[in-house]
Amino acid sequence: MPHPNNPTLRSFIEVDPASDFPIQNLPYGVFSTNDGLAPRVGVAIGDFVLDLWQLEQDCRIDVGNAGVFAASSLNPFMAVGPKVWAKTRARISELLRHDNPELRDNESLRERVLVPMTKVKLHLPITVSGYTDFYSSKEHATNVGVMFRGKDNALQPNWLHMPIGYNGRASTVVVSGTRVRRPRGQLKPPNADTPGFGPCKRLDFELEMGVVVGQPSAMGEMLSEAQAEAMIFGFVLLNDWSARDIQQWEYVPLGPFQAKAFATSISPWIVTREALEPFRLAGPEQNPTPLPYLRQAQPNNYDMALEVALRAPSMAAPQPICRTNFKYMYWSSVQQLMHHASSGCAMNVGDLLGSGTISGPEKSQRGSLLEISWNGSEPRQLPGGITRTFLEDGDSLIMRGWCQGDGYRVGFGEVEGTIVPAE
Amino acid sequence: MPHPNNPTLRSFIEVDPASDFPIQNLPYGVFSTNDGLAPRVGVAIGDFVLDLWQLEQDCRIDVGNAGVFAASSLNPFMAVGPKVWAKTRARISELLRHDNPELRDNESLRERVLVPMTKVKLHLPITVSGYTDFYSSKEHATNVGVMFRGKDNALQPNWLHMPIGYNGRASTVVVSGTRVRRPRGQLKPPNADTPGFGPCKRLDFELEMGVVVGQPSAMGEMLSEAQAEAMIFGFVLLNDWSARDIQQWEYVPLGPFQAKAFATSISPWIVTREALEPFRLAGPEQNPTPLPYLRQAQPNNYDMALEVALRAPSMAAPQPICRTNFKYMYWSSVQQLMHHASSGCAMNVGDLLGSGTISGPEKSQRGSLLEISWNGSEPRQLPGGITRTFLEDGDSLIMRGWCQGDGYRVGFGEVEGTIVPAE
Repeated sequence: MPHPNNPTLRSFIEVDPASDFPIQNLPYGVFSTNDGLAPRVGVAIGDFVLDLWQLEQDCRIDVGNAGVFAASSLNPFMAVGPKVWAKTRARISELLRHDNPELRDNESLRERVLVPMTKVKLHLPITVSGYTDFYSSKEHATNVGVMFRGKDNALQPNWLHMPIGYNGRASTVVVSGTRVRRPRGQLKPPNADTPGFGPCKRLDFELEMGVVVGQPSAMGEMLSEAQAEAMIFGFVLLNDWSARDIQQWEYVPLGPFQAKAFATSISPWIVTREALEPFRLAGPEQNPTPLPYLRQAQPNNYDMALEVALRAPSMAAPQPICRTNFKYMYWSSVQQLMHHASSGCAMNVGDLLGSGTISGPEKSQRGSLLEISWNGSEPRQLPGGITRTFLEDGDSLIMRGWCQGDGYRVGFGEVEGTIVPAE
Repeated sequence: MPHPNNPTLRSFIEVDPASDFPIQNLPYGVFSTNDGLAPRVGVAIGDFVLDLWQLEQDCRIDVGNAGVFAASSLNPFMAVGPKVWAKTRARISELLRHDNPELRDNESLRERVLVPMTKVKLHLPITVSGYTDFYSSKEHATNVGVMFRGKDNALQPNWLHMPIGYNGRASTVVVSGTRVRRPRGQLKPPNADTPGFGPCKRLDFELEMGVVVGQPSAMGEMLSEAQAEAMIFGFVLLNDWSARDIQQWEYVPLGPFQAKAFATSISPWIVTREALEPFRLAGPEQNPTPLPYLRQAQPNNYDMALEVALRAPSMAAPQPICRTNFKYMYWSSVQQLMHHASSGCAMNVGDLLGSGTISGPEKSQRGSLLEISWNGSEPRQLPGGITRTFLEDGDSLIMRGWCQGDGYRVGFGEVEGTIVPAE
């Protein structure tokens, strides 16, 4: 049987070459329809969602743990472990192949298990156990450093030695399409003596990837590279909404808190680590050489195109404002996970690790409005004479990402969020 | 029926006046015995645990939601809300009163529902949804500031305007008695050019109270004082173990991460907010006056004695190293919760909010070894010629807390942790 990543595979379902969801992808999500059934686990294929719960009911798929696909999150399926993840993906690939009549020629089964995308509502795909946010793009950290501390002290002394990160707020991780209310908070303009309280005036996005941790690690234990890699179930697009003015006033000395706590949006489809395997490449050279506990034998970056677009209320279509690539990240997801567990911190099924804002070496590759507008000093021009320094009420922000194969792409769909007024 | 806080109440169970668990307390916990039954919910009374699940089976108690006491955490019971919390506590108080024959004179029921403390194992009482740690003692923040920035810049400019806090790591919150492995991490001594990786050399405790949030709040919504207060189910003792050397190197600019991620210990009994009501008092004057969203009409500190003791392996008994009081805290728990939700951050049942290290105005009231040994420069003398700057392998750290009534005390028991070597 050919491997599910094989580029020559075809499905009996027609998939446009520009679709994010060919048979080589098979990302997992949680969906519901208006049939009254509870949200359950599915896989995206072209313009359809494959209902894994129905397939399980029909004994077409068996993960040895009945009920995991009836769950309203992927956590129970993730908990069964990497061997079953691989076996399940292979079986789904087999069922969808153009040369397998099992599902292709069974009309009543097809009608039950293949749901048009237009008819589904997509839900938050995981129960987020812990949300951690890193800061692993050298270009982003440098841009921020130059803005606030000047060129000579741009990177903090610790930055090149470890993937700097902090604990975020898991309770407000939401799925694409969820409206984001402009946060309120304490704001102290530089010329004011005391802070006031009110709606954030410098609301920003951050383009990130999120790693979905699918296996736990024990308290007190460190992780090898192989262990960390095996724990990663997949990736999602992640928008780390940020209130720059709240952050500026609150973050010394304990880091971002309410400035990031109001919302974090993720894409509904989790692209598996396995599906990204063909797009793996080496990241930037790490100099100084990382300490032994952070060293990697395997290249662990991915050649993944990323695009951010903004649509102001009066604009007909979203306008791209950033085009970059995940491959620029200095610290890899595996290094982030190894660092996270290094103190003895237990990892859980459903942990979500944000990569940190993904910028690139070019100006067009900046992954936040803070960088794009250079802290508000260079407004970004948009069609129709519109300009933006930060996000305004009614603005929609859309992120997309995909790995380009030969004649197909393994993509994430999108993560979208629209800003609604503070009250 | 007298209120369960009435100081004249007596139980038919003999309770020593020095016990933490008189009939005026009735704290909730999760316990198991060697009878093969799963961990379930109980209440401490004197030297016994009252088995609420057995009481429910016997139809002696009814919260309108069968099964909440069969759970291995208090989250399901907390989710039913403050009215049921009050009704349940009143019913338990009634059942335990010296003048009520219902349980007192029913020997077979007594034998089923009253389990000697010596026979129970106590578990983590809640499933921790999110763990947030504040920094709300002015004395502690000032001590730390003087050590690291000098007297003139001791308090950061934002400190007097809001309860500064950060998100901690929920996955490693453990119950009293759990051994704590010395964490490893990146350490960079001041005279070294580059960091190394190894066991923490400056392992510390932090004396804190933990607020247990028992009700959720919606994303995007702020909280009034009354709403925040009503969401608080109760309090636990909390030891926020800290690796000072890891912290020093990692924390700029995103705050503590691996330095605090390896363990946080809490006491097994949750003392309800209601039981602490008689010990409420006003906290220190807040100057400047807090912004309107942080203002409180009700005094919201508590007169609660706190004590920390340390036992090195060669010592016969723990030696007190700190005696202070929760009443010194500058920012109250209600203010912390109002600030936490102010950006639109959703709160969940099972959220745990650490108060921040509780120090007091006197030298003997310092709530961490960092302060007690003044950053290692003043070793603390212990019996038998032993000295400590920070914690050594084998050391046990014990925290106790109680509110003193007239002839009784409403106490927390203890939170204990013993340090085991890094490997």
